Amino acid sequence: MSLLETIHGPRDLDRLSREELEQLAVEMREFLVREVAKTGGHLGPNLGVVELTLAMHRVFDSPHDAIVFDTGHQSYVHKLLTGRQDFSRLRERGGLAGYPQRSESEHDIVESSHASSSLSWADGISRAFAMTGQGDRYVVAMVGDGALTGGMTWEALNNISDDNSRRLVMIVNDNGRSYAPTIGGMARFLNTVRTRRAYRSLYFSSRRFFDRLGRPGQAVYRGTRGAIHGFLSRFSNNEALYSNLDIKYLGPVDGHDLGSLEEALRQAKAYDAPVIVHVITQKGRGYEPALADVADQFHAVGQIDPETGDPLEHPSKPSWTSVFADEIVELAARDPRLVGITAAMLRPTGLHKFAERFPDRVFDVGIAEQHAATSAAGLAFGGLHPVVAMYATFVNRAFDQVLMDVALHRAGVTFVLDRAGVTGPDGPSHHGMWDLAILQVVPGIRIAAPRDATRLREELAEAVQVDDGPTVVRFSKGSVGNEFDAVRRTDDGVDVLREAAHRDVLLVAVGPMADLAMRVADRLADQGIGATVIDPRWVIPVPGSVIELAREHRLVVSIEDGIRVGGVGTRIRQDLRAAGVDTAVDELGLPDEFLEHASRDQVLEEAGLTDRHIARDIVSQVLGTRIPVARPLPDEPAREYDAERGR
Amino acid sequence: MSLLETIHGPRDLDRLSREELEQLAVEMREFLVREVAKTGGHLGPNLGVVELTLAMHRVFDSPHDAIVFDTGHQSYVHKLLTGRQDFSRLRERGGLAGYPQRSESEHDIVESSHASSSLSWADGISRAFAMTGQGDRYVVAMVGDGALTGGMTWEALNNISDDNSRRLVMIVNDNGRSYAPTIGGMARFLNTVRTRRAYRSLYFSSRRFFDRLGRPGQAVYRGTRGAIHGFLSRFSNNEALYSNLDIKYLGPVDGHDLGSLEEALRQAKAYDAPVIVHVITQKGRGYEPALADVADQFHAVGQIDPETGDPLEHPSKPSWTSVFADEIVELAARDPRLVGITAAMLRPTGLHKFAERFPDRVFDVGIAEQHAATSAAGLAFGGLHPVVAMYATFVNRAFDQVLMDVALHRAGVTFVLDRAGVTGPDGPSHHGMWDLAILQVVPGIRIAAPRDATRLREELAEAVQVDDGPTVVRFSKGSVGNEFDAVRRTDDGVDVLREAAHRDVLLVAVGPMADLAMRVADRLADQGIGATVIDPRWVIPVPGSVIELAREHRLVVSIEDGIRVGGVGTRIRQDLRAAGVDTAVDELGLPDEFLEHASRDQVLEEAGLTDRHIARDIVSQVLGTRIPVARPLPDEPAREYDAERGR
Repeated sequence: MSLLETIHGPRDLDRLSREELEQLAVEMREFLVREVAKTGGHLGPNLGVVELTLAMHRVFDSPHDAIVFDTGHQSYVHKLLTGRQDFSRLRERGGLAGYPQRSESEHDIVESSHASSSLSWADGISRAFAMTGQGDRYVVAMVGDGALTGGMTWEALNNISDDNSRRLVMIVNDNGRSYAPTIGGMARFLNTVRTRRAYRSLYFSSRRFFDRLGRPGQAVYRGTRGAIHGFLSRFSNNEALYSNLDIKYLGPVDGHDLGSLEEALRQAKAYDAPVIVHVITQKGRGYEPALADVADQFHAVGQIDPETGDPLEHPSKPSWTSVFADEIVELAARDPRLVGITAAMLRPTGLHKFAERFPDRVFDVGIAEQHAATSAAGLAFGGLHPVVAMYATFVNRAFDQVLMDVALHRAGVTFVLDRAGVTGPDGPSHHGMWDLAILQVVPGIRIAAPRDATRLREELAEAVQVDDGPTVVRFSKGSVGNEFDAVRRTDDGVDVLREAAHRDVLLVAVGPMADLAMRVADRLADQGIGATVIDPRWVIPVPGSVIELAREHRLVVSIEDGIRVGGVGTRIRQDLRAAGVDTAVDELGLPDEFLEHASRDQVLEEAGLTDRHIARDIVSQVLGTRIPVARPLPDEPAREYDAERGR
Repeated sequence: MSLLETIHGPRDLDRLSREELEQLAVEMREFLVREVAKTGGHLGPNLGVVELTLAMHRVFDSPHDAIVFDTGHQSYVHKLLTGRQDFSRLRERGGLAGYPQRSESEHDIVESSHASSSLSWADGISRAFAMTGQGDRYVVAMVGDGALTGGMTWEALNNISDDNSRRLVMIVNDNGRSYAPTIGGMARFLNTVRTRRAYRSLYFSSRRFFDRLGRPGQAVYRGTRGAIHGFLSRFSNNEALYSNLDIKYLGPVDGHDLGSLEEALRQAKAYDAPVIVHVITQKGRGYEPALADVADQFHAVGQIDPETGDPLEHPSKPSWTSVFADEIVELAARDPRLVGITAAMLRPTGLHKFAERFPDRVFDVGIAEQHAATSAAGLAFGGLHPVVAMYATFVNRAFDQVLMDVALHRAGVTFVLDRAGVTGPDGPSHHGMWDLAILQVVPGIRIAAPRDATRLREELAEAVQVDDGPTVVRFSKGSVGNEFDAVRRTDDGVDVLREAAHRDVLLVAVGPMADLAMRVADRLADQGIGATVIDPRWVIPVPGSVIELAREHRLVVSIEDGIRVGGVGTRIRQDLRAAGVDTAVDELGLPDEFLEHASRDQVLEEAGLTDRHIARDIVSQVLGTRIPVARPLPDEPAREYDAERGR
């Protein structure tokens, strides 16, 4: 029996010796490589926090003490120590989530995987504990150095420094990386701290220090010759600042030395005030293939060969990301005004090729979507055309900036939203299902949703030509969709993919939903129902020919892989009504819910977004004639309306 | 002729002597008090930046050099110096805007009045200048100390420090206040800097310093004994930090001493790298009534007596804000779990009464809406029920946090959104017209829109009882609406304000639109059209009885003072269709545009939200029978559909 199997909860760690703990760390790394290789997941980050998580659970008593992970992709070790050792269906439906999840364990608190929020959570929780007679409960936040580039962290620190009456330990897990290396002045500072002393010496120097200072009250370890002051801790040698910005700082600590980690955390615990513990860790620690991966040290992997780290899946079609990556280089080569912006995701968004070819024209702004959007408005004012590439779920962070800085100022900025729609295994906070709904209410915005690689290239080229307001090009995770050539293209750019002789149903497909719509049309044809399928290409504003086509049909069904409330379908329907077209509209899309992790197909199936389900619903409407007969069709008798039919 | 009248552009300042400039400053303060007293506006902030703006325009050459104001409410002096001296219709339709506006002048660049964005703008603009052969153009950002509490500023500084090749001058206008005094660790630090040296001595000490150092390259003024290092500039005495975080810092400078201001700005200009100039100003400077106003030093005033500062307008009805302010105290007295959160707007949101009564239960987090929302989720986890009070337009900043931190975690947090809907004189960025559209797509959210004071008290009390997800209570600027008692209340809480015998039209009024809907119903009755008026009270999710009532009517007209695309009306219509009710729905609301400053009534009129306009449209639909006859009405023959009618 392995040591790991004997751990059912954090308190089982109490009885282990230092040697056993080190053995446990070895076992956990073996476990992580073996298991994550089978399912895919966030491997590098978890290999980096094995000792840190062990020490945290040794020193603090979860769930009495509240542990908050920033982003949460580094919570696998925490799961292993809190009774969750079945990783066989990690990130699959019914299996363990890839992030903390309250429904899994009382040890999990913050589920959202959007970065930089943990200190705000910790501020709130610790304040509530202090106010409600739970002052003996500690709050421990583990935040990566990358997340510190996000403005929320700053907002939180400004507030935390305001109240010293709480038991709040902020562990900065400093591996020098966001996905890619962390950028900016802060990163340079942290790097200085790291390089000033070799890893090994950290432990000894801090141990000496702790040995020397007996009383916890004196034991704020300030490093050697003040090297760690200033930026991160908001300290400086200046006594005025020091006395005013009262967050204690402790570190840097070797994040792979259990002894110094525990010592540091016990010291931090001994304060009854907020304290930062600066821990240096190595992403991918202990796994050669991860360490050798300069790009992102196996931040997130698919299924891999555990020996070599080589991917086992070889998709036959290119990814949406790679099509964008190649095309933006082509466009940039022709148009010197194009510049790229990424929020700490150069490679995941595909901007790395642009950066390789034109290093001075791509900016990584850190995990800072707000700044990405607003600085893009500034770049546009200065005469450039920025292309801001991010995951769709993260544009939620920049709604106000897209609205107030980009759109209000009619700045020519193109937002490229990757991972739009259903993403799958990453769960509720990674689905890109809100972008269409919130962006369609931005005045003057233009949104394209390419259905395949050809259209992605085409619509991207169109988008970067627009210089009087924001454009959006949004596409899915994974491999590009099947190519569908248009039967014809209308004057205003709508692709008719299939044209029905009997104009019963108009299927309006948003982007990759074209494939689904075509299959629905096949099924309808089998039932003798004529279905026209269109891809508006630019879904917002709704092109006029969508309205005209709708006028000719008896039912419009829009299909989008975004939340259906407030989505593109509602806009189509409003525009129809404004044009005096009363053709009934069904807006299909994702339900008004948070969607648990599962495969993309499973999520779509559950949302009713399958050809079978949609076709059945349309058939029952058309045959049951729930469709109000807006006008008599030329070749058909009027039908009775069946008031009793629901859906 | 006054000196002011001779100034038609910034370069007219060049010929003025120091004495003339000081005379001009006096004239401008007299002008501001006299003119703003007539129209209302942001008085205190502008009185504080007279000398600073003068010096800025003396040293820099707008519009060749780009000047960016953070929030922009301090741009009146700038307007006076750039050819805009007719303040007679300030903030009225057709008159000068209260913020910079590109359509007014080439000297204006950033129009949005949402705080903390200026450094991101400046980062983008300066980067573009450097990249496009415009490297001789400076970018000057003027940002208040209050705005530094917003996370965006941090994101920008992290990036600005990354590139030293640009001509970027960041002026921190430090008056120690946001609206109220600035909070947090940063504020304490700035306060230390300010108090360490008396105002008068600043000038002399800096002059001595400048005199001594001839070469610009050496003249980074570091203050006395390092007092100004650290926090604001991200400097410290620590050489590692110093060499890594390379933003120059200059100050503090007396913001009312033209000589030292010009000297400091010229020094800043002499660098070809980003530099921070820390300027100490006094809000309300030179105007006794403003200085005597401890609460916010006349941050924004209505019409006042210029001699005394006393308000000339005395609304007969209480404001929505004051009703909330009183009621939350009542609720808090009964429920110890209630705590208040404000983002630097304690008094404007009405939370000050709560804070006076229960000082330990209200938190001002600074201009930090993201942190406000997420820390509230933390407070809820810890067992409290936070009430986050902010202006509706600012919740745009926290969309992701409401969604991911509050809603996903089913945290019982109540958002109280003041200034929802059309606000009027503050222009596009202050209308609260997006809150309904973006919040209605947050799964599990519940949104109340009270129509009058009674309902505000009632719905607020209901909201704070909800502990399994976010609730929103949103209301208008200004005085409460007329009280309308319900004819009846349905089981699920919908108030029927007027019930038509002939069930032609169902008017669904969102909050304060009830008054308008009642007047529309009167007009319809005059035409023999029966109109039922309901106030759903809780508009999201749509109560079931709205659906049932809609089923009985021939046309549903929803009226909301938010953007109509993606708004509550679209949700009602979707829910109707899902329930198999095909009654036609017209969603009335604000257009999909940015709305210029004007009075609230003018904006509503232009949007077609008047009783006359709405009634006329409904009449033409009902009589022209554009309404699809979803089912035969009992007492009416079927009507022909007129396919030609538009709207």
